[in-house]
Amino acid sequence: MDSFTATTSRSSDVAVQVAANPEKFRVLTGERPTGPLHLGHYFGTITERVRLQRAGVETFLVLADYQIITDRDTTANARGNVYSAVLDYLAAGLDPEETTIFTHSSVPALNQLLLPFLSLVSEAELHRNPTVKAELAASGRALSGLLLTYPVHQAADILFCKGNLVPVGKDNLPHVEMTRVIARRFNERYGHVFPEPEALITETPELPGIDGRKMSKSYGNAISLSMTEDETASTIRGARTDSDRHITFDPEGRPGVSALLSTASLCLGVQPEDLAEDIGGAGSGRLKQVATDAINDFLREHRNRRRELAQDEQVARSALQRGNDRANQIAEETLNEVRTVMGTTY
Amino acid sequence: MDSFTATTSRSSDVAVQVAANPEKFRVLTGERPTGPLHLGHYFGTITERVRLQRAGVETFLVLADYQIITDRDTTANARGNVYSAVLDYLAAGLDPEETTIFTHSSVPALNQLLLPFLSLVSEAELHRNPTVKAELAASGRALSGLLLTYPVHQAADILFCKGNLVPVGKDNLPHVEMTRVIARRFNERYGHVFPEPEALITETPELPGIDGRKMSKSYGNAISLSMTEDETASTIRGARTDSDRHITFDPEGRPGVSALLSTASLCLGVQPEDLAEDIGGAGSGRLKQVATDAINDFLREHRNRRRELAQDEQVARSALQRGNDRANQIAEETLNEVRTVMGTTY
Repeated sequence: MDSFTATTSRSSDVAVQVAANPEKFRVLTGERPTGPLHLGHYFGTITERVRLQRAGVETFLVLADYQIITDRDTTANARGNVYSAVLDYLAAGLDPEETTIFTHSSVPALNQLLLPFLSLVSEAELHRNPTVKAELAASGRALSGLLLTYPVHQAADILFCKGNLVPVGKDNLPHVEMTRVIARRFNERYGHVFPEPEALITETPELPGIDGRKMSKSYGNAISLSMTEDETASTIRGARTDSDRHITFDPEGRPGVSALLSTASLCLGVQPEDLAEDIGGAGSGRLKQVATDAINDFLREHRNRRRELAQDEQVARSALQRGNDRANQIAEETLNEVRTVMGTTY
Repeated sequence: MDSFTATTSRSSDVAVQVAANPEKFRVLTGERPTGPLHLGHYFGTITERVRLQRAGVETFLVLADYQIITDRDTTANARGNVYSAVLDYLAAGLDPEETTIFTHSSVPALNQLLLPFLSLVSEAELHRNPTVKAELAASGRALSGLLLTYPVHQAADILFCKGNLVPVGKDNLPHVEMTRVIARRFNERYGHVFPEPEALITETPELPGIDGRKMSKSYGNAISLSMTEDETASTIRGARTDSDRHITFDPEGRPGVSALLSTASLCLGVQPEDLAEDIGGAGSGRLKQVATDAINDFLREHRNRRRELAQDEQVARSALQRGNDRANQIAEETLNEVRTVMGTTY
């Protein structure tokens, strides 16, 4: 059994345990606030977070603002992106009293964990991390010290709150593995402080951008949760399809048409092949209309709640403040344990 | 003019400016608390720190406890080494009201600066640092993430308090240079927050260990400031000399004899050649007696003060507490400025 198969199998055991004893788990999850959250986030992570919260699993949700600069030179609009994300979380049903939403840069004691953790891994191990390799290749820049040490930041994010469950896509398994290595080495060297977290592999439907490429703000191919219905319609209208009026689901051969089918069918809860058959020979004009309606209908309630929440700036601010306060309190407790076992209390 | 000559020349200009306007400078200096401070520290850095304090230059003195683990697996006795160093600082005349003595691990806001700073340097730049190379070679281990990023920690140590003057031996010039690069890039990218610190090259007398090798706790060839007179005598008695009764100063040919001459003559304020001539044909027994007396006489006052200060544990503890409080206050102010210019205030 290879390592991936082993982890997948362990992960489905974990899912069973989570369902049986949600109170035994603490989840760390999060994202880089590099732009507005979009449909990919909604189906990929937000619904899973809401599900975990409803199941009674305590969740910590980091808006990893320092990770914005792993591969770019500016933090411009970090604040706007953070508050936009908080509004989406709240609108989607995350309760700031149950889910701790916090920003990376607001929790110094968490960030301090980077120093002892960096001593536990070799440069060679950092280099072997596939996410670092992939992001380095994508960035087209020299490897920065921050990107190189990124897996160790993630370990600090997970371990500061003693997270023992990390929902990940398959691509991010190596991060969880490195976190387990760091926890194990720390505990062996200094005394038991950290759990070795388990990966919870989330089976996310593949949602491409509306051009069929990976959904990404930088490609302009994403439907943001915060768009108006008109903006959504206009974005879909601009999507590139093809001249074959007969609509079929063929992601390889017809990426544009198929991306619209994928998106609309996810929103409608149907299969893209069935939706294609329904539309038949009505052409991409009809497909675009179907997709626009499906997305706008699906997001209507979310967007209404979001707009209401946005009326009072204090709502998002106090949700984040509460999260940051709680994250700081927990990070300071953990850091004190770390200092105690390391003998660096004065 | 090469870079080293340029820096040396700039450094002597700096010394003139410091003498003229001490209030314009803030010094960051420090050491790794890996063992008791010894005569090498006394002549190398402690007297310079006392001199700067007396001249009216505000000094921050970091006991870099996280740097203990750049090249080893344990922080054992970190606390003991820290308190021992604090006692030596106080006994030597450093006033905790004027010189801020603090421990690295006690100042999370300082350590957080590591994250934005790591984004400003490439892995290749980190690798070029000669100190990292030298320590890596000396450690005989795989390069740890902590050792690789060590120059960036030093930048955080210097810049958190907006230190603009760093006393260094010639070997450590590259650290100051990297700190200047980080300050400059940060200021250019986000807005002016940090000074570009100047190196103050300290002309330290070369004091070898009593066996002629580099003075180091791990070689057992150092005279600790905290030794008793008997321990000092016993350590000197055990020093390896040679069988030529005629004492001469010849560091290459007679490392043991010459090391004792260097140490004793520094304590006596004479030249080692003259001391050798004085001892003449009286042999190494006489040399050892002269060295023991010279060291014990020189350190007697320091050791008496140290013993007195050690009577009340609260003395060292409150000096460090005051330093840590002040370092935290300043680090939090600086971190807030960093957050403001980066737009990561929420």
